[in-house]
Amino acid sequence: MVSLSMEIELTKTKKQKPAPNELGFGKYYTDHMFMMDYDNPEEGWHNPRIIPYQPISLDPAAKVFHYGQTVFEGMKAYRTSDERILLFRPQKNFKRLNLSNDRIDIPQIDEEFALEALKQLIQIDQDWIPTEKGTSLYIRPFIIATEASLGASTSTSYQFIIILSPVGSYYPEGIKPVRIYVESEYVRAVKGGTGMAKTAGNYASGLKAHSGVAGSGFAQVLWLDGIERKYIEEVGSMNVFFKINGKVVTPALTGSILDGVTRNSILQLLKHWNIPTEERLISIDELYEAYTNGTLEESFGTGTAAVISPIGELQWQDKKMIINEGNTGELSARLYNALTGIQNGEQEDVLDWMVEVK
Amino acid sequence: MVSLSMEIELTKTKKQKPAPNELGFGKYYTDHMFMMDYDNPEEGWHNPRIIPYQPISLDPAAKVFHYGQTVFEGMKAYRTSDERILLFRPQKNFKRLNLSNDRIDIPQIDEEFALEALKQLIQIDQDWIPTEKGTSLYIRPFIIATEASLGASTSTSYQFIIILSPVGSYYPEGIKPVRIYVESEYVRAVKGGTGMAKTAGNYASGLKAHSGVAGSGFAQVLWLDGIERKYIEEVGSMNVFFKINGKVVTPALTGSILDGVTRNSILQLLKHWNIPTEERLISIDELYEAYTNGTLEESFGTGTAAVISPIGELQWQDKKMIINEGNTGELSARLYNALTGIQNGEQEDVLDWMVEVK
Ligand SMILES: Cc1ncc(COP(=O)(O)O)c(C=O)c1O
Ligand SMILES: Cc1ncc(COP(=O)(O)O)c(C=O)c1O
Repeated sequence: MVSLSMEIELTKTKKQKPAPNELGFGKYYTDHMFMMDYDNPEEGWHNPRIIPYQPISLDPAAKVFHYGQTVFEGMKAYRTSDERILLFRPQKNFKRLNLSNDRIDIPQIDEEFALEALKQLIQIDQDWIPTEKGTSLYIRPFIIATEASLGASTSTSYQFIIILSPVGSYYPEGIKPVRIYVESEYVRAVKGGTGMAKTAGNYASGLKAHSGVAGSGFAQVLWLDGIERKYIEEVGSMNVFFKINGKVVTPALTGSILDGVTRNSILQLLKHWNIPTEERLISIDELYEAYTNGTLEESFGTGTAAVISPIGELQWQDKKMIINEGNTGELSARLYNALTGIQNGEQEDVLDWMVEVK
Repeated sequence: MVSLSMEIELTKTKKQKPAPNELGFGKYYTDHMFMMDYDNPEEGWHNPRIIPYQPISLDPAAKVFHYGQTVFEGMKAYRTSDERILLFRPQKNFKRLNLSNDRIDIPQIDEEFALEALKQLIQIDQDWIPTEKGTSLYIRPFIIATEASLGASTSTSYQFIIILSPVGSYYPEGIKPVRIYVESEYVRAVKGGTGMAKTAGNYASGLKAHSGVAGSGFAQVLWLDGIERKYIEEVGSMNVFFKINGKVVTPALTGSILDGVTRNSILQLLKHWNIPTEERLISIDELYEAYTNGTLEESFGTGTAAVISPIGELQWQDKKMIINEGNTGELSARLYNALTGIQNGEQEDVLDWMVEVK
């Protein structure tokens, strides 16, 4: 345990909390936020503080606006039926934040300290953690480059911020498959680029692709690799899995996709259950062949927001793959129940994932 | 001419202007800035205003911080010896801003209106335009997504901002060749991605590459294409040209590099001078071969900041190419003098590029 000395300024005007059925995703924010600064290598990260949730004030020339020097994370806290507060593998998120920092040339943070700061912030705002089934407190740590300079070089100053957002159930009417469009025109990331980091620019590329197909009822696009334009990468903000002939296949971490915490957890769970898994290259042609010969049994996306999102349909150019008759597969449901059960404390934490906020 | 109705709030406390020899690049900002808002498609861009230069205040959940939905431009205003103020091809920059907007799913701006607003802003802050040889007023229009929502989708609201920065001469001691490192590990952009747009994420990728070689005296990295890792793309924030065997070659606009205004102007000037040019794929192997057989005569980068930056040395893996004995080439110097002469009003504007601010 790191010793935690930080300034805490509590809000004088607590906000009204939204009704549980109005939560949605990332629309409401709690009463407080965590913040710390970086101004030079000698002092390092300093002035950690918890303050009332408030606007950030930046010089218009701050580098984050111009050169995208920023990284972020996404994770969740859950309230159990016996009123405990649990975080799902938060160490992995802060570790990944430092991997992203490395790629985007941002100074490393102290992962242990960040976790303790997060716990303290959550304790202060714990009344904001919703309790209804499927709800949680979404946690968004992020770092922005603040130097007011238009030179296209690494910033000398940064802010590290954590905000919290109570989020509704992803499936208010029960887990439900989505339709996904296989993107053939736009590319999200390429080996050697920033695809393995959680950084803003990776998402900017997908906005137009997503807008283009959202009107036709597709929830997300499925990205193909930027080099051969045939290997499956990931879906919007989820990693992707396919059950083919009894084996569970997911794209290998080749450097252009995110090493998802949910992905990693699913792979661990499947191994724990003795279900065969494969991390490897998988082309869209191979997938389509599996579809036509009847061996593509299930597909699902994995990510912090939805946990498991069954894929009922994949549209690839003029070819449509209806997977498992458009229904949630047996394994998808089993994984969803197991993972969410562990997360909300209703099932035994067999793989020692949960971290309690005390 | 569009009719321009906008609110103007002048500053009450004018800043002190920096000494001409302290200007540097993008370190000082003028007394005012332009701003307008976008909140919904019906109203469109609205509330254009010129206000005192001031911090931007944003919700910590503003999408620009998380999903990089932002675009920018860079251009310059010059003060001539007879006290006129000239802009260099500003229409091209606002047109490119809209191309970037399209790629990043940001609403189009009215290019003509933006130019008129810029002129008005420059008039108000015209005392900030430095007059020393080689100095100018750098102009940075940019758009940021402001919606406070963590959903990874297109923002519903934006701010368009223009800030101005007096900048020093790029070559206080005369035009001077730089050393460039050919980047083999990292990739800037790939076809299908955002490389042809001027958007923050493209620059985030290069920060680490640049930091890695800056210590060894390299000014910038030269990017190779992300697919075959052999075709030359561009240099940091410049396009790149090679004079090989009397012909001037520059990489074609294949979708992953920026369509530079300086690049375009150089090509026009060369055609005007009847010097043969080629826009095509050029591999690093071809370049090295030209170097070894003695036909690589000159090389230079082109961009708004430096105008022309002669390249004296290219380091590619363990191979070093010393170009024109490390000196500024004859054509590089001729282009530099012609272009800067037109820009600062000392030479005839033969290609009708300059726009006066009256
Ligand atoms: C691009 C991308 N891929 C995958 C994921 C899934 O990662 P995780 O399971 O850690 O949430 C995310 C985000 O959550 C993402 O943004
Ligand atoms: C990536 C990149 N390439 C090339 C250029 C050159 O473009 P321009 O001549 O329009 O300044 C710039 C910027 O100025 C740039 O950022």
